[in-house]
Amino acid sequence: MCKSSISDCPLLLTITSLIIGAGPSGLTVAYWLAQYGINARIIDKRGTKLFRGHADGLRSRTLELFDSMGFAHRVIEEGYHAAAFMFWRPDGKGGLHRTGQQRSTIHTSSPYRMALLSQGRIERFFLDVIKSTSGLEVERGVIGESLSYDESLEKDPQAYPITVQLRILSEEEATPAPNPGICPYQPALDDLEDLIQKRKHKVGTIETIRTKYLIGCDGAHSWTRKQLGIPFEGSHTDHIWGVMDVVPITDFPDIRWPSSIDSPEGHLLTITREGNMVRFYVPLQEDDEVVADSFDRSAVTLDMLRERVKKIMAPFYFDFKICHWWAAYQVGRRLTPTVNKGRMFLVGDAVHTHSPKIGLGMNMSIHDGFNLGWKLGLVLKGMASPSILDTYSSERHHLAQMVLDFDQKWASFFLKKEKQEQQGLEASPQEQDDIQAAMRQAFIDNEQFAEGHVTFYKSSPLVHKGSTTMAKHLVAGERFPAALICNQSDGQPWWTTRLLKSDGRFRILLLAGDMRLQDQQSCMSTLSESLTKLLKRFTPSEQKLDSVIEVKAIHSAPLDQVELRDFPPIVRQFDEDEGWDYTKVWSDSKCFWDEQCKGNAYEVWGVDRSRGAMVVLRPDQYVGWMGELDDVTGVTEYFEGILCERNPSPVL
Amino acid sequence: MCKSSISDCPLLLTITSLIIGAGPSGLTVAYWLAQYGINARIIDKRGTKLFRGHADGLRSRTLELFDSMGFAHRVIEEGYHAAAFMFWRPDGKGGLHRTGQQRSTIHTSSPYRMALLSQGRIERFFLDVIKSTSGLEVERGVIGESLSYDESLEKDPQAYPITVQLRILSEEEATPAPNPGICPYQPALDDLEDLIQKRKHKVGTIETIRTKYLIGCDGAHSWTRKQLGIPFEGSHTDHIWGVMDVVPITDFPDIRWPSSIDSPEGHLLTITREGNMVRFYVPLQEDDEVVADSFDRSAVTLDMLRERVKKIMAPFYFDFKICHWWAAYQVGRRLTPTVNKGRMFLVGDAVHTHSPKIGLGMNMSIHDGFNLGWKLGLVLKGMASPSILDTYSSERHHLAQMVLDFDQKWASFFLKKEKQEQQGLEASPQEQDDIQAAMRQAFIDNEQFAEGHVTFYKSSPLVHKGSTTMAKHLVAGERFPAALICNQSDGQPWWTTRLLKSDGRFRILLLAGDMRLQDQQSCMSTLSESLTKLLKRFTPSEQKLDSVIEVKAIHSAPLDQVELRDFPPIVRQFDEDEGWDYTKVWSDSKCFWDEQCKGNAYEVWGVDRSRGAMVVLRPDQYVGWMGELDDVTGVTEYFEGILCERNPSPVL
Repeated sequence: MCKSSISDCPLLLTITSLIIGAGPSGLTVAYWLAQYGINARIIDKRGTKLFRGHADGLRSRTLELFDSMGFAHRVIEEGYHAAAFMFWRPDGKGGLHRTGQQRSTIHTSSPYRMALLSQGRIERFFLDVIKSTSGLEVERGVIGESLSYDESLEKDPQAYPITVQLRILSEEEATPAPNPGICPYQPALDDLEDLIQKRKHKVGTIETIRTKYLIGCDGAHSWTRKQLGIPFEGSHTDHIWGVMDVVPITDFPDIRWPSSIDSPEGHLLTITREGNMVRFYVPLQEDDEVVADSFDRSAVTLDMLRERVKKIMAPFYFDFKICHWWAAYQVGRRLTPTVNKGRMFLVGDAVHTHSPKIGLGMNMSIHDGFNLGWKLGLVLKGMASPSILDTYSSERHHLAQMVLDFDQKWASFFLKKEKQEQQGLEASPQEQDDIQAAMRQAFIDNEQFAEGHVTFYKSSPLVHKGSTTMAKHLVAGERFPAALICNQSDGQPWWTTRLLKSDGRFRILLLAGDMRLQDQQSCMSTLSESLTKLLKRFTPSEQKLDSVIEVKAIHSAPLDQVELRDFPPIVRQFDEDEGWDYTKVWSDSKCFWDEQCKGNAYEVWGVDRSRGAMVVLRPDQYVGWMGELDDVTGVTEYFEGILCERNPSPVL
Repeated sequence: MCKSSISDCPLLLTITSLIIGAGPSGLTVAYWLAQYGINARIIDKRGTKLFRGHADGLRSRTLELFDSMGFAHRVIEEGYHAAAFMFWRPDGKGGLHRTGQQRSTIHTSSPYRMALLSQGRIERFFLDVIKSTSGLEVERGVIGESLSYDESLEKDPQAYPITVQLRILSEEEATPAPNPGICPYQPALDDLEDLIQKRKHKVGTIETIRTKYLIGCDGAHSWTRKQLGIPFEGSHTDHIWGVMDVVPITDFPDIRWPSSIDSPEGHLLTITREGNMVRFYVPLQEDDEVVADSFDRSAVTLDMLRERVKKIMAPFYFDFKICHWWAAYQVGRRLTPTVNKGRMFLVGDAVHTHSPKIGLGMNMSIHDGFNLGWKLGLVLKGMASPSILDTYSSERHHLAQMVLDFDQKWASFFLKKEKQEQQGLEASPQEQDDIQAAMRQAFIDNEQFAEGHVTFYKSSPLVHKGSTTMAKHLVAGERFPAALICNQSDGQPWWTTRLLKSDGRFRILLLAGDMRLQDQQSCMSTLSESLTKLLKRFTPSEQKLDSVIEVKAIHSAPLDQVELRDFPPIVRQFDEDEGWDYTKVWSDSKCFWDEQCKGNAYEVWGVDRSRGAMVVLRPDQYVGWMGELDDVTGVTEYFEGILCERNPSPVL
């Protein structure tokens, strides 16, 4: 058989979906397809996984998503946690001095803060979690050669309208040219096996496959995007800078804090990293209007970056002997006008590029893939209509535009100063103060957006905008705010981000209110019966009742004043092998051994502690619908608008 | 070469040390030898690692040690965390009712609480951490055949006085007989590779090796102990009970809390475990005086345990379909009079056995190995005199006796009731209350001991008992109390348990006091010079100055009111490749983003915030010496009593 060993048989295979590119966005889509058990393939042109360099910033919402995927703890264990940013400026006496510290404040609504960790490690965690649930493996050293699309088949869910030719690359072709001057580097133990290049077919084999869906996650220079003829529009003004991951030898006091160093020689950004590494963003040419033709990016050397940093950081000493990775970048602000052509989608950097200095790139890519993947999974399983895929564009494209605007705004602070300097104008201390104050304000104003805590997902079949009186701090189309709550059966405190696993299910959260009250108990009993009927409509009869939509209860009574048996069967399901389910009833109680668990989740959500509310979360934990605790009609309409009626033989 | 592939060449090899048994105690010794880079071997009679059953209780001190070894987070991730214990008793109406909850209180002095996790997972974590630092691998399916000892060589550190014959077992011989009735079980992903039995030599090969040291970690039925002719003394009164790890099907409300269920049908102990598993300790025969000859342990079946639990838990429903592991046990309280014969040592269950119901067995074994391993490492590296090995006996043997006493005391509570019941006497509610109150008091009285937070290590060259006025809450020979402190260079809060890595080094902690004060700064400068001289005396010249003894400073000034450059070179070492060391200066400050980090470490240790103190920690983080911050004479004498003077060619 062709797939299991080296061979030269180019079969014409069909596959439900093909992901091109195994970076963070491609792996996120693959994660979802693995969760739904979809027969997919994922290819990447590199012969091995990434080990060094590239993206490193993980915003708190991304960590929340990782928590729901089961590997946030690995980032916490290995990464650097950025709680504040230091500002340095000339001291007027030829030196530099610290002028302030900007602390991140997001933590009140999230268990996480920004973390810095090499993209290669994030890919490791994705690969591991995918492996734990499916046989889906990245095929490396494989590129697309040609792509054709039969539009006439687009409406037929059984059809394979996309034909792709793949070519297996040689080891040489699949190895990116290394930058000279990189020092020896020891990959993590669990990455060692991936250092060896493997191929499923002979080098040079051309394989033709037909697929229902194609997902192009192949980066800024996306082959897929070019094949689809989708333009990559943006400003012609490009910035050039260097980036290097080094072990600095320096007496700069804040080398272990992320810092903005604004010296007369240029503006340097340092990003503290795992271990003793620091990333430096080094200005080479920053201009929003013209690219100087004279500047040859390929002529940039590591020593040029070293010398530039030495000058900027003077009078502090700076040098390094160990460099894990470096590059010279020239990226414009670019955006595609559309994110798909029929059943072929673009995700991540293939859609949008901007400066890596704002630390959003990998996050945006992961969030794109996180948004598309579960929808694709539902459609391919025949559980939802293909029309839900339209929301990928309506939810994500405008966010890409917002990120570009944010990038432009941020860059303007530096450019203003840079221009003054180029024109020989020294900003007065007052002007410097003003710029810095404006930067801080921009930081604060944009924190919720930058951290991924607001997304402005629009009204759609997946997002019902309506009354919010029963849950004042929840917004349909936004994330469900994280809170720490206690399990009714064992008292253990869990963050909702972990509890609400990204396992492909919708969730109905019964915020049951005060379950010591007879009214709430009656309401829950009635609900149990109505929701059981509802769930049965959308769940294949051979599957468990909670396999498409899971119901969980979070009540507000103290843990020790109610018992699990006070709750109705919908949240206390019985399994013949495993007994009663203890994972569905939770209490918004203080935990006596975890100070963080304050019993204030209802306040975080703005829900009345007596009366409660009902909330539907989509598989990605964004609020899809909310209503009164007894609003069965409302919740029914929501699911009728999305899911196909129960179907004993799902289409696949 | 014999070791790398299957062969039949029985070479006469020499090895510095041989560990027999790769359970928790053997792996702990192996951990240390790997840290010191010792050329050791470790064998185990089982053909594979353990996957199911056996010990499961990890006390908080054990987790602290795991933190210092770098894998506590894996236990936190996978284990169940026991914060309280539930008590159930007859309600006088034929039913059972909850009569109280006993919360563990230890958390004020430790980052950890008791965790429950399968011994097989703990072994996995040990194997992984050993692999990350050395080539030491467990040789499985190997037993000792004969052992001889040449006492005349005992005093010669270069000699190999021990000769052992090893035999390679067949797969059949190396597979323990399974208990019938175990349901299918899916091992963890990272254990899968270990399901396959591997051998370095042909089955039946007899290999003769000579070794300097032998460490018998081969359990209650220790082959090593028998070879050494060391008796296993103890009471002839044995208890018989069953233990089973099942997924219970029950409506007992506290099935997800560890519980003591004291019914007229017997006393049941339930231990909540990872996943949905629960361990049941089921009484079959408990009698402190005679073993009824009529009771045949081999006749015990899983259904006998099932029926017994059904009766005890009635009127609650109980049954199960999934059983991961079960066993019938008959263990007495036994202790060897000595823990070694010359250079041959016994560790863990080979020295002491008691009831597993007190949840101390695996902890004691690990602590034994943790105590012996680093001493052996120092001796084998030629860094310390073999005489320090005497402290293994003086520090650990009396603790084993204490555990046996504790076990007896604990058992007496149950036995008292059991006898009453056997005699047909129903305890009055008052009597029941009294017993329960006494149990709770015993729980509280013994918590520090049971959690491993007190050890009573005696005065020795490794433990200088003396004045404690400068650090009122520290005790020489006890653990260094855990505290959360901030790194001076990046502000990140770390528990001292993690900071003080078990990497084989002694540590001098300079509790520098208030470094804003000129006096403290001067004192630190002077200390830096004196301690540099001291360290040089004991450090081979080709090694880094901190490779034998590391100096760290923990000051009491607010983080932002001092800078790293205020500290002298001894805690700010420069490396040509990596620059300055940012890991040696810490502040007892509040952390603005971690509520747990309160800036009260000095209070935990009882140290004056202005004046400070100096503390020496042994490689196992037990306090070896303490004195005033300027007491160079005292600290010098401590190390002169243990370490050999600097030696450019260490004996190995």
